[in-house]
Amino acid sequence: MEDVAKRARAAAQVLGGVSLEVKNKALEAFKRHLVARRAAIEEANALDMAAAEAAVKDGKLSSSLFKRLDVSGAKFDSLLAGIDDIIKLPDPVGQITYANKVSEGLNLYRMTCPIGVLLIIYEARPDAGVQIAALAMKSGNALLLKGGKEAQKSNEALISAMAAALSEVGLPADCIQGVDGRTAVAELLSQDKYIDLVIPRGSNELVKSIKDASRIPVLGHADGICAVYVDEHADLAKAVKVCVDSKTQYCAACNSMETLLVHPKVVKAFLPMLAEGLASKEEVHFKADSTCLPHLPADKTEPAVEADFFTEFLCHTMAVKTVESVDAAIAHINEHSSGHTESIVTEDKVVADTFLRRIDSANVYHNASTRFADGFRYGFGAEVGISTNRIHARGPVGLEGLVIYKYRMYGDGHTVADFCGPEEKRRKFVHSRIEGVNRVEDIPEVADEAATSKLASLSLKSRLGTLSCFQFLGPRA
Amino acid sequence: MEDVAKRARAAAQVLGGVSLEVKNKALEAFKRHLVARRAAIEEANALDMAAAEAAVKDGKLSSSLFKRLDVSGAKFDSLLAGIDDIIKLPDPVGQITYANKVSEGLNLYRMTCPIGVLLIIYEARPDAGVQIAALAMKSGNALLLKGGKEAQKSNEALISAMAAALSEVGLPADCIQGVDGRTAVAELLSQDKYIDLVIPRGSNELVKSIKDASRIPVLGHADGICAVYVDEHADLAKAVKVCVDSKTQYCAACNSMETLLVHPKVVKAFLPMLAEGLASKEEVHFKADSTCLPHLPADKTEPAVEADFFTEFLCHTMAVKTVESVDAAIAHINEHSSGHTESIVTEDKVVADTFLRRIDSANVYHNASTRFADGFRYGFGAEVGISTNRIHARGPVGLEGLVIYKYRMYGDGHTVADFCGPEEKRRKFVHSRIEGVNRVEDIPEVADEAATSKLASLSLKSRLGTLSCFQFLGPRA
Repeated sequence: MEDVAKRARAAAQVLGGVSLEVKNKALEAFKRHLVARRAAIEEANALDMAAAEAAVKDGKLSSSLFKRLDVSGAKFDSLLAGIDDIIKLPDPVGQITYANKVSEGLNLYRMTCPIGVLLIIYEARPDAGVQIAALAMKSGNALLLKGGKEAQKSNEALISAMAAALSEVGLPADCIQGVDGRTAVAELLSQDKYIDLVIPRGSNELVKSIKDASRIPVLGHADGICAVYVDEHADLAKAVKVCVDSKTQYCAACNSMETLLVHPKVVKAFLPMLAEGLASKEEVHFKADSTCLPHLPADKTEPAVEADFFTEFLCHTMAVKTVESVDAAIAHINEHSSGHTESIVTEDKVVADTFLRRIDSANVYHNASTRFADGFRYGFGAEVGISTNRIHARGPVGLEGLVIYKYRMYGDGHTVADFCGPEEKRRKFVHSRIEGVNRVEDIPEVADEAATSKLASLSLKSRLGTLSCFQFLGPRA
Repeated sequence: MEDVAKRARAAAQVLGGVSLEVKNKALEAFKRHLVARRAAIEEANALDMAAAEAAVKDGKLSSSLFKRLDVSGAKFDSLLAGIDDIIKLPDPVGQITYANKVSEGLNLYRMTCPIGVLLIIYEARPDAGVQIAALAMKSGNALLLKGGKEAQKSNEALISAMAAALSEVGLPADCIQGVDGRTAVAELLSQDKYIDLVIPRGSNELVKSIKDASRIPVLGHADGICAVYVDEHADLAKAVKVCVDSKTQYCAACNSMETLLVHPKVVKAFLPMLAEGLASKEEVHFKADSTCLPHLPADKTEPAVEADFFTEFLCHTMAVKTVESVDAAIAHINEHSSGHTESIVTEDKVVADTFLRRIDSANVYHNASTRFADGFRYGFGAEVGISTNRIHARGPVGLEGLVIYKYRMYGDGHTVADFCGPEEKRRKFVHSRIEGVNRVEDIPEVADEAATSKLASLSLKSRLGTLSCFQFLGPRA
């Protein structure tokens, strides 16, 4: 596996230098090759589905996992449409986020660039592999993809279609490599020299076990134990809407509500309204504290224990509790929540401010459903996942989460020694902002970024991807 | 240690909500308390210095480590001046970096906020503890500080002065806690529930051992194996200036040059010039390949082996090698470098572009000394360290590296279900940028951020810091 990781790094060093044009052409080629191989992909998928169906019958696989395996028909179409969405997004690479005149003739620019090599571990859904590959391509990252074993045939068919597309546009096939088996993953996790980031899309246990096994940074979410707090100043009709949506719009999602906190003043009026609102949607069950219990349907309610407020139910069960004030709600959430998404329903703006300011979660909402925590709904075009990390990227992660930056400095023989020594003789730091430099192409010191980039593209077309494909970009003879 | 980490988290939840005014007052109080206890601090420092001096004599401590222990006299003054610099910096918290109208009446804002709890492990220099504490305060992070055992008395004196300052401005003393001993650190490394980021300022081995021992993300740099490439189109006088500074301005720094790469066409002319330039500065020794060797002073040069190009000498030794082209230079660096800082000396802008574009390091320079890789020189006011990470923060890390963000969403009972269903009936996503919202105070939906923040400050003044100090901010009776 060291060789796999090493080849991914070499591919990343090629991919990091190509233009938006090449990356978008690769994405177009992904689509063409997926369409051309559609029959074979759907056939492979049918085999996975048949095996999974048998496993469901034997009780070895859940039916929800089975459903997510499907990439045929409309699912295939939306997979293609997803690539189109990513083509339309602006280039996340080459953006200038800091431009500073350090001193006379010495200028500094911070420029976004790809992270390098990503290892993504994902579960059943084979379409996730395509979406992630498209995001990785757009952000210039090389990719190691480990899908679920139930989707092995589908994944192989999809990944080989994309690999074929890569060579068509002259990019190294190693830009996207599929890997199989737990041993392979375990070996890759020790390749911290070549792999820069692991993104596990799966259970809390998966994320933890990867963190334990590797020095490589991990971007992943823990449980989504999301709460809604209905304040004494809530518009109760709005509160019903928000809670019903947060709980039932898709209860198996990480951003669905697991805990409801209610102010004592509205318990009596609100809970029956909520139970009625929920009844029209789903068979929701409650685990309620002693104050809430009498106001919920007896046949659907049982007493809550403390552990219920640390539980991600991911089904039609929710925990309900009274809290004395917004402060008590905040204290409860900051103690019990997984730091994903929390919402307050209130008409009091100062109370809302307090909640949004002091809740320590990735997403904090006022009068809105927790289900909005999502890259598409946030306007990112696509997402890699939702992070409860507190470094690098938090909340829904789009293309911005797949880039980092490097600093370019341009001088004319400048030395640090020039800035030391006697006050009257030494050079002075200026540190003034350079205006109007938004992209690498705007940097005045760059001879012709477009030209170098174009040369790189031409070179890529004519040769297959190793680092040597850049060789004629060297000093002019 | 779990209790220590837990208390740090509680303190972080207070500190995360306070205004710039309170944070700057705390920094002013740091200065006052350090000045008031100056005699005691210098006395404690003298004891550490005396013990260290004895250890140097016994060969148990290096003399460079000994020198860095000193915090008396002028060092103490510059430590105070460093706090002033940090007071002057703008608030890194509360900046809006994304403002999106998601739909009619549904607005989304991404706001910078503190990371939470930082564990910093630093070596000899006790003044580093004060600088880090000032940066952590400005960015609203709670801090666990583990200094070197040689500086234990100095660190205790400095940290207790800052802790006293905290209570004067009504902040929890747990905002800054000193920890001692390896066992304590080992225990803290398992507290990933309460500690969000570890920043080890020390050797490569220290960083690796921490990554192996913990699930907590680590921000640290590996070795600084920095290279300068002198191209065939270099102005050789500039090249001498850049190389002499990169190697000798402070050769024990991570951003000093370890490897020199020279184009064959200039080897003969350049290396004697360089040797002459270096001779006036320091006794530099060379490990050179067979092409370079004849052009360097025989008494100071020995043949290089491959391992030399993977070595961070941190002293007056450097490795020298010819490379056939800028491409060969890039390939050498991307293979051997630690990803810290590399510089090219050339008058050819296209060659420079190629180098800056394709070198995969945090800092890439054209005609400038590698020694510029530093937070102060970059205009950040101060730095926590230099990162060779490829996520979160890369290169010199200032205040921006100590914050993350969270998303605030404001609706009016909005649900995701409203956006589903039949085309003609469903709500539409707008996703247009909201202009003019640069700080949290600018968010139109915020009732009165200044007021909530002020209330919090008043409250902090009157009570000592637990979460309860915010209680009267709850819903109005």
